[in-house]
Amino acid sequence: MIGIWLENKTLSVRDDLPIPAPGPGEALVRMRLAGVCSTDLELCKGYYPFRGVPGHEFAGQVVEAPGSPEWIGKRVVGDINISCGQCESCLSGRPHHCLHRKTLGIIQWDGCFAEYFTLPVRNLYPVEEDILDEAAVFSEPLAAAFEIQEQVHIHAGMHVLVIGAGRLGLLAALSLALTGCDLSVVARRPRPQAILRERGIPYLAAEDIPPHRADVVVEVTGSPDGFDLARRAVRPAGTIVLKSTFKGNVQLNLSSLVVDEVTLVGSRCGSHPAALRLMQEKAVDPCPLVDAIYPLSAGLAAFEHAAKPGALKILLRP
Amino acid sequence: MIGIWLENKTLSVRDDLPIPAPGPGEALVRMRLAGVCSTDLELCKGYYPFRGVPGHEFAGQVVEAPGSPEWIGKRVVGDINISCGQCESCLSGRPHHCLHRKTLGIIQWDGCFAEYFTLPVRNLYPVEEDILDEAAVFSEPLAAAFEIQEQVHIHAGMHVLVIGAGRLGLLAALSLALTGCDLSVVARRPRPQAILRERGIPYLAAEDIPPHRADVVVEVTGSPDGFDLARRAVRPAGTIVLKSTFKGNVQLNLSSLVVDEVTLVGSRCGSHPAALRLMQEKAVDPCPLVDAIYPLSAGLAAFEHAAKPGALKILLRP
Repeated sequence: MIGIWLENKTLSVRDDLPIPAPGPGEALVRMRLAGVCSTDLELCKGYYPFRGVPGHEFAGQVVEAPGSPEWIGKRVVGDINISCGQCESCLSGRPHHCLHRKTLGIIQWDGCFAEYFTLPVRNLYPVEEDILDEAAVFSEPLAAAFEIQEQVHIHAGMHVLVIGAGRLGLLAALSLALTGCDLSVVARRPRPQAILRERGIPYLAAEDIPPHRADVVVEVTGSPDGFDLARRAVRPAGTIVLKSTFKGNVQLNLSSLVVDEVTLVGSRCGSHPAALRLMQEKAVDPCPLVDAIYPLSAGLAAFEHAAKPGALKILLRP
Repeated sequence: MIGIWLENKTLSVRDDLPIPAPGPGEALVRMRLAGVCSTDLELCKGYYPFRGVPGHEFAGQVVEAPGSPEWIGKRVVGDINISCGQCESCLSGRPHHCLHRKTLGIIQWDGCFAEYFTLPVRNLYPVEEDILDEAAVFSEPLAAAFEIQEQVHIHAGMHVLVIGAGRLGLLAALSLALTGCDLSVVARRPRPQAILRERGIPYLAAEDIPPHRADVVVEVTGSPDGFDLARRAVRPAGTIVLKSTFKGNVQLNLSSLVVDEVTLVGSRCGSHPAALRLMQEKAVDPCPLVDAIYPLSAGLAAFEHAAKPGALKILLRP
């Protein structure tokens, strides 16, 4: 089959990859659409020493499911964390934090940037007919956006600021807008500004952030500059949600967090059902974020496009 | 009057300080006992450029209260944050985070290491007769310990680890023990170990901390090493409470906080009423922490004693 291969920080498109065989409890999924995420770009730079097929955002269709024939033919999205079900995290109801987890296209498990891939059946969620593949492929990052609200109580009485209006920042903004909070987004490029304007979400430049006013700041740039902005924007006793992978270490003045009683919340994966339901209800429409769709055979061009400053969502199709 | 004076990182005992005059809404308080805190030691090293009388932990007696004669003669403790009552923090019910606050013995307000000092009457709390001065003087740091539970929900089903068994760490442990949580404390010196043993709180050595098990870790050392221990001890999706002033910046791997969805909570001052009530009920007895009581005239020796490794609470009397 055709697929993208990552090895020694080098991407290639290969047409000689074997179609994987689903193990017990697993399904073989045909990729219909897949999304390139910033984590994929970081993987190429060596963020994690992964060798194999990258890719973890997908809409697919089950073609084999030994022992679970009811899944065959179903259009699905899926949880990317493959958990052991036995460790203290799993037994405490936190399978996303399984101590022995593998992760689709990130840790020891081939991902979805190929014609076929496997996932445990228990990781799959069926996609209702009226959700387009172009929306369903956003289920994973949109679930990650909704994770913010699983961790931090956000309500209409709050000032909330999102720093960073890229792929994930915009999804965070679209999800937070549902709470009715007083939301604004730091956005400096016309495309994200247009998407926010369309949705009625105010945006502003970094230099116009009111100091020490936001109850909650969601940091999605993953840069020390973004963190510094967040620190200045958050009110005393407020919360900063870290919603993005940071490159390297950051110098932090922990005393100032103590004096101002600021809370930092690390935030990663969420659960798909809410994301799927809210796309079905058209409460969130991620489709305007799609910049381009490339065939797998043009995978390298897709990655190049995704890495361009200001690029939003780049999709791959078989 | 006699008092301790801090100027250019240099302490001196002076006998020529003027007795301060209480302004409108303020009381003149005679110090009965005062406690030396690690923040006082840090102030001497230049943590904050304070010039004046340090000291913010006290049990005192009101001797003048223009406009509020009902306070005269009362034994009191007091909130150390002098707030403006007008800023956004004050109007939002967070006077401890007043944007224009002064702080007793720390920021632009002479403290309690003198025979007399002033505080707004609204900062005072009367002390019931059956609370000894030697306990009441702990009201401020004990309130800071109870602040942990105002910020983080801690219950009997949780594993909680306190890192650091000094002055504040022990108070944190004594306060957390009331929740019935599965509490343990990293303590390596015999004195804190004896205090913990007396109270039935298990202690352990740093190298015996079970990795990634604690639901909540309270970091009270204020050192990068302590933070690293906390990071290793906390479970995925767990919480680290930063309960101590850190010296300088700390290199932090923010990505690991994101991946493990760890929450950091900065924690500073608490409110006195719970601390006073629980001392009155003998639910918390801080008196075993007292190492020595020095007269103000021996203030420099008191500071030297407090700075010794392993020293617990050093008190000053007029």
